[in-house]
Amino acid sequence: MLGTYRIRTDLAMEQAERFTEENVEIRGVAIQENYDKEKDIRTTVVKIQTENGAKAMGKPQGCYITIEAPNLSVPDEDYHREVSGEIAHHLRELIHLEKEKSILVVGLGNKSITSDSLGPQTVDNLHITRHIIREYGVQAMGEEYLHRISGIIPGVMAQTGMETLEIIQGIVAETQPDVVIAIDALAARSTRRLNRTIQITDTGIHPGSGVGNHREGLTEENLQVKVIGIGVPTVVDAATIVHDAMAHLLEALDEAEQKEFLEELISPNLHSMFVTPKDVDETVKRLSFTISEGLNMAFARV
Amino acid sequence: MLGTYRIRTDLAMEQAERFTEENVEIRGVAIQENYDKEKDIRTTVVKIQTENGAKAMGKPQGCYITIEAPNLSVPDEDYHREVSGEIAHHLRELIHLEKEKSILVVGLGNKSITSDSLGPQTVDNLHITRHIIREYGVQAMGEEYLHRISGIIPGVMAQTGMETLEIIQGIVAETQPDVVIAIDALAARSTRRLNRTIQITDTGIHPGSGVGNHREGLTEENLQVKVIGIGVPTVVDAATIVHDAMAHLLEALDEAEQKEFLEELISPNLHSMFVTPKDVDETVKRLSFTISEGLNMAFARV
Amino acid sequence: MLGTYRIRTDLAMEQAERFTEENVEIRGVAIQENYDKEKDIRTTVVKIQTENGAKAMGKPQGCYITIEAPNLSVPDEDYHREVSGEIAHHLRELIHLEKEKSILVVGLGNKSITSDSLGPQTVDNLHITRHIIREYGVQAMGEEYLHRISGIIPGVMAQTGMETLEIIQGIVAETQPDVVIAIDALAARSTRRLNRTIQITDTGIHPGSGVGNHREGLTEENLQVKVIGIGVPTVVDAATIVHDAMAHLLEALDEAEQKEFLEELISPNLHSMFVTPKDVDETVKRLSFTISEGLNMAFARV
Amino acid sequence: MLGTYRIRTDLAMEQAERFTEENVEIRGVAIQENYDKEKDIRTTVVKIQTENGAKAMGKPQGCYITIEAPNLSVPDEDYHREVSGEIAHHLRELIHLEKEKSILVVGLGNKSITSDSLGPQTVDNLHITRHIIREYGVQAMGEEYLHRISGIIPGVMAQTGMETLEIIQGIVAETQPDVVIAIDALAARSTRRLNRTIQITDTGIHPGSGVGNHREGLTEENLQVKVIGIGVPTVVDAATIVHDAMAHLLEALDEAEQKEFLEELISPNLHSMFVTPKDVDETVKRLSFTISEGLNMAFARV
Repeated sequence: MLGTYRIRTDLAMEQAERFTEENVEIRGVAIQENYDKEKDIRTTVVKIQTENGAKAMGKPQGCYITIEAPNLSVPDEDYHREVSGEIAHHLRELIHLEKEKSILVVGLGNKSITSDSLGPQTVDNLHITRHIIREYGVQAMGEEYLHRISGIIPGVMAQTGMETLEIIQGIVAETQPDVVIAIDALAARSTRRLNRTIQITDTGIHPGSGVGNHREGLTEENLQVKVIGIGVPTVVDAATIVHDAMAHLLEALDEAEQKEFLEELISPNLHSMFVTPKDVDETVKRLSFTISEGLNMAFARV
Repeated sequence: MLGTYRIRTDLAMEQAERFTEENVEIRGVAIQENYDKEKDIRTTVVKIQTENGAKAMGKPQGCYITIEAPNLSVPDEDYHREVSGEIAHHLRELIHLEKEKSILVVGLGNKSITSDSLGPQTVDNLHITRHIIREYGVQAMGEEYLHRISGIIPGVMAQTGMETLEIIQGIVAETQPDVVIAIDALAARSTRRLNRTIQITDTGIHPGSGVGNHREGLTEENLQVKVIGIGVPTVVDAATIVHDAMAHLLEALDEAEQKEFLEELISPNLHSMFVTPKDVDETVKRLSFTISEGLNMAFARV
Repeated sequence: MLGTYRIRTDLAMEQAERFTEENVEIRGVAIQENYDKEKDIRTTVVKIQTENGAKAMGKPQGCYITIEAPNLSVPDEDYHREVSGEIAHHLRELIHLEKEKSILVVGLGNKSITSDSLGPQTVDNLHITRHIIREYGVQAMGEEYLHRISGIIPGVMAQTGMETLEIIQGIVAETQPDVVIAIDALAARSTRRLNRTIQITDTGIHPGSGVGNHREGLTEENLQVKVIGIGVPTVVDAATIVHDAMAHLLEALDEAEQKEFLEELISPNLHSMFVTPKDVDETVKRLSFTISEGLNMAFARV
Repeated sequence: MLGTYRIRTDLAMEQAERFTEENVEIRGVAIQENYDKEKDIRTTVVKIQTENGAKAMGKPQGCYITIEAPNLSVPDEDYHREVSGEIAHHLRELIHLEKEKSILVVGLGNKSITSDSLGPQTVDNLHITRHIIREYGVQAMGEEYLHRISGIIPGVMAQTGMETLEIIQGIVAETQPDVVIAIDALAARSTRRLNRTIQITDTGIHPGSGVGNHREGLTEENLQVKVIGIGVPTVVDAATIVHDAMAHLLEALDEAEQKEFLEELISPNLHSMFVTPKDVDETVKRLSFTISEGLNMAFARV
């Protein structure tokens, strides 16, 4: 089994897939899939319900919604409004937006590294309302009541000298939101998923995940408020590419032999390399619009 | 006297000048000037020492150091290292950098409005050390001891929905720095000072100041730690240009007549206009280097 | 009369206005105005028909269409599609787009100076077709026939060491377009017109015009093909602000006295200053969309 | 032999290496290597002298200078001035800069795709002199005589609708430079060379080379003036990574079997993927400084 060789993926669905491929059912993990043929959107909900399930999946208990839309990587006029709608739908359910909420949206990642800039670019396009409602009241917004949206782009540790968690803990303590939504660029296992998959989870953002590798998680445990994580894989570790291409080839060998081969073949400097599509700059910009519109739609309706 | 007509300046020196012109000495305000002929740098230290002085100046008690360097607006190879040195010198005195300090540098302003982006651009060029020292200890830095520098670009209220003060209060509470240094683009009264003048003050940043107009001050009173404000005028309100040009012309009239004329002549839409040099994009970029180098120099030496 | 004191404007309409104010009719100049109340768009067509008219107006013979839309400076969802439509309408008439054309669009100005970047930003958003039609034929575009659109952002002389005219002459000689459309940021006389007025002319771009001041014109005479100029005022010279504010005040004086006063009052360094709205970065970005959409609309329909 | 399976490299040295590995000497190809231990710079000069050599190497006759500096990928204070000096040295020899020259520098590639923006970023940092010398004479430059430097960033075909060759042919015909220097981002075969290798050649830029894949070459044959190409590999095609990792593994198989395996294993979508270092944005920016400083040094000295 190749699972002993650690390949990094931030997508719960990719983890689940590996068990499915081997026809193993995992106790404590419920998987539900839905395909909208007209919109060509596949939604997979993975619910990790027990400690055992969490161990098997290598991810904390909670709900992981994956929206796959192959068209996402193709530009269109309205930035894939149908995908924004799907995001909005799931957010409304997860956060219970039928009641007025105060929400802090956090754009994780390094603005000046293209593949890591999804979070910052998304927050740049949000409709921010908290300061207006605080000054003029909700009625100023022309709706019966409305959510108080604030946003922050904290930067990464190399830029700030601070853990992202420290910054967000401080701001949460001061501004007391009901929910934190954190948006981050992820690393995927397969190039097939790059920029076409959006993962929404109620477990927050975890250490070691993301293109820029967070060291301490933005989780309900750490922040004392509900934390929703939204992620899109924008890179694949270059080592993964080689690994995956060879897994098939090496099937004849036993596990120990496989591991030896792979370790020899994957040169160490590959681990500091990313695989990205050639048009990653344009792609991340478009994706950030799809997500920010999803958030704007979710927050606007009452 | 024209003083009754409110003209906005963030520079204590410009305020002081108006009294000097009229040969008035203000009690509670001490002014000291120094000119380095070789470097062509003029340094003015205005100390507002009493409540009375504060009232007369329209600025809080404290020390205001103004560095004027006409050459600043001209590009040079090392981004005016002599000015960086001057900044470093004053910072070392104000913050007592002979002892190890933990310092949070805040880049105020809107990164996507050129004339308001001085603060964010300065923080982008800082040597950030806090996270390294926290992980590996000061000896990892190759010096006997070193300051712990962190930096944040909080964004403006229209982008975040939060008062800058809320964000900084939260981060200060969480990370406990000894000093906060806040950098901001200012509005000046005279085009002659644009991008050539750097003001350093131990009174922090005050409401209504800055290109973007802060509503609540970053001050020692609000943050419970010492706050140093560093500002450079990058714009003049367009209305000021007209006002100043005419002040001279109108000298013959009495005060009431003057006010009437000015109010008639300065069209309301002028108040949403800025006067900037044609090359403001390049200028702000260079200035941010001069200041960040000043900070880097101040922090590096022990 | 103030006319003797040279105040710079790139807008034919502003020039014409000065005569109208004084109730003077100029021979050889026909002015026609149209106001669309519903869309709040005012269109003024100034036709300079004779040498005499050209002299009086200080502009070459030809057709100057000015589209004024006060709403342009306010953001809206579709980047003011009604104004794009108006631009498309006039272009179709001026270039005779009912026949298939090969069109080179030139984005004049300095991309890295915000107020001068209108031309480059507009070309960035154009649908470029020439290379596709050349490789796959017009039928590849899915329309009966289509225009061959190419685009270039030549940069300014300080960046290239070449006159813009040299660059465009070379490219025109090599690629043989039927028409050149040059887009440029202009200087206006009045802040009231900033970012709200679009001028389209069949006389091209003239020396000394534009925010960056071209030295040799992009004209039919120089390029041997029809040249359409499209300009939007994005700045006012700071000196103009003072001048205009005082013109009214000085009416009592005679011409010589006025000139003396003005020359004294307008300090020389004002001439290197621009007046811009505070949000010029965002505004120029939006305007470039309105114009590029106007061009895209004009080129797409058959 | 794997050579039958086409793997793309723009570096002559990588091509030569493959023969060297197999201990084959190619007639018509002279290879000379020099290593400066102190600066840790290895310079390889490959001279393809005959038709036969050109065929074997798959590259046109001419001189290919490769500068390898492992430190290049590490930031330093002066942007690796020692490498700039090496570039300057070779340029002076290739272009005979002891005589006054008129030189057009062309920044190839797409400015808005990070890994392809090396050329545009390099031209942005050049000292442009042609317009000053034309207006004020060489003596205005404060040197006895000086080269006339012009620069252009033509954009890529998808942006302009024109072949880069058309644009440059037009500008060369109009401005008559003695030499064209074209700078481009390249694709390498090995991640080990990424951002650490600079290739200078007197054969210009060839079709199918570069990150963006030029369709017609910028060569002396096409432009009628000498053309120097300067390239730095900033990406590796993702398919190459897999290919290289497996070449070793597959050695036991015969050629036909190898090819079959490889074609099966390398998924088609890999061919639209790039492998880049995680910090490609910062790296390309630094490299462009090293190269532009090399050019500035070469042009400045007399």
